[in-house]
Amino acid sequence: MTKKTAFTPATHTTPPAAFSHGVRKGNILQVAGQVGFLPAQEGQPPTPAGPDLRTQTLQTLTNVKAVLQEGGASWDDVVMIRVYLTDTGHFAEMNDLYNGYFAEQGLTEPPAARTTVYVGLPAGLLVEVDALAVLG
Amino acid sequence: MTKKTAFTPATHTTPPAAFSHGVRKGNILQVAGQVGFLPAQEGQPPTPAGPDLRTQTLQTLTNVKAVLQEGGASWDDVVMIRVYLTDTGHFAEMNDLYNGYFAEQGLTEPPAARTTVYVGLPAGLLVEVDALAVLG
Amino acid sequence: MTKKTAFTPATHTTPPAAFSHGVRKGNILQVAGQVGFLPAQEGQPPTPAGPDLRTQTLQTLTNVKAVLQEGGASWDDVVMIRVYLTDTGHFAEMNDLYNGYFAEQGLTEPPAARTTVYVGLPAGLLVEVDALAVLG
Repeated sequence: MTKKTAFTPATHTTPPAAFSHGVRKGNILQVAGQVGFLPAQEGQPPTPAGPDLRTQTLQTLTNVKAVLQEGGASWDDVVMIRVYLTDTGHFAEMNDLYNGYFAEQGLTEPPAARTTVYVGLPAGLLVEVDALAVLG
Repeated sequence: MTKKTAFTPATHTTPPAAFSHGVRKGNILQVAGQVGFLPAQEGQPPTPAGPDLRTQTLQTLTNVKAVLQEGGASWDDVVMIRVYLTDTGHFAEMNDLYNGYFAEQGLTEPPAARTTVYVGLPAGLLVEVDALAVLG
Repeated sequence: MTKKTAFTPATHTTPPAAFSHGVRKGNILQVAGQVGFLPAQEGQPPTPAGPDLRTQTLQTLTNVKAVLQEGGASWDDVVMIRVYLTDTGHFAEMNDLYNGYFAEQGLTEPPAARTTVYVGLPAGLLVEVDALAVLG
């Protein structure tokens, strides 16, 4: 059987349940839903950046990237990004942030596909993002 | 590195942010979340079909198919379809439309898996659909 | 073209529309959104376990596993689990159930990635789960 590998960036808090921040099996790498938690501090509970949408969104994308990198991947490998917002009124601003963020990433491949939907998230969280990558 | 290819059907409006309507990397093809926008008109903003569920759902499926085809794929290649509705009261009608639509597609392979959940969408949109396909 | 195979465990009710409970194409296996329906009874409509979160969650995970097994896969093959809850107040209890369930599964590989979001589901359903696996 193809081995499955999990990875947790040093900046990340331990997942709150029996799941992995990122796994790779075969040529598929999946990043779990990331939120805008600041880098983990020993002995401290996870703390979201923000509370504004800008800070949380950029921290969330940073957290997704950290998992990709820990798994030997980059944004160029990502085929799908799922963005979960809590408020349709945040769409335009999130898009501006998203565009600005990716403009600075120096991608050499076309951008990933994306789906954005509006859901409930735990109190204090405005955005969650996960990503599917294909390696090799 | 495996190259990533993006595709945009001629009927499609430009994505509202730095994402692709469809991408392929290796044998994986991902279609971004599609809504019921009518074929793009030069100089016009995206306009949803409808406003009824029937018209929007069929236009949305047409838009997903256009991305699949632009990427050299068909419904037979799709393994997962995610359907986002805004109202649990739309489930039965959406299923009728979905069944009718696929009955006319002449599939030669079994239908894809599917998850349907109820979320918020931008005003005027009743349905969003994305799809994951495996090629080769 | 790579063939697509669909599978339906004997315990499962017929899907309410033209989709498959599970499909495999190439090395990708996708399990459709499963809810906590009890094993199908001839001539009876689908009936959810429960109504409590504990019973529904465990039945839902059992149903996902049944599809994986019918497709020749196991939890060890799963790279992504998507959990849909209806209430953020259910997160802690779902995590406890999730941890307990997987502790008993005897996984030999690291756990899958996961995203949990809060959506609407049909009346009476508190949880839905789908899963993406990589075989071979």
